[in-house]
Amino acid sequence: MKARIHITLKNGVLDPQGKAVQNALGSLGFDGVGDVRQGKYMEIELSETDPDKAEKTVELMCQKLLANTVIENYTIKIGD
Amino acid sequence: MKARIHITLKNGVLDPQGKAVQNALGSLGFDGVGDVRQGKYMEIELSETDPDKAEKTVELMCQKLLANTVIENYTIKIGD
Repeated sequence: MKARIHITLKNGVLDPQGKAVQNALGSLGFDGVGDVRQGKYMEIELSETDPDKAEKTVELMCQKLLANTVIENYTIKIGD
Repeated sequence: MKARIHITLKNGVLDPQGKAVQNALGSLGFDGVGDVRQGKYMEIELSETDPDKAEKTVELMCQKLLANTVIENYTIKIGD
């Protein structure tokens, strides 16, 4: 079973990396580029076969290690 | 119009960051954690309103700046 996790900065939290990308795209001649937000994406293979249990485990992983919940949101998708 | 981009390492490319996460999860007592792959996720606001044109533009952005196409794959979703 595979878990797909998106970790993104909360609204209102400054995103200097996204800002740098936005400026770089402008310098390269791309017009009409607005806000850029950069986040993380993770795929985790789990031996757990019950989707509900897997989701709870991954939620714990996010809270304990993967995300900084003060400034970041996370979303979890469980699948194959 | 918003573009959502996933940038992941190609199969066979070593992922030390993912490995570190895998080991850290093991140290924290999470069992049954297999392969962990870490990638990037980006949301880009575009003033372009034509989805086809937007996708082509973002594809160019990926090739020129956002992804290292030697070792990384990217997928693009255009939406609101």
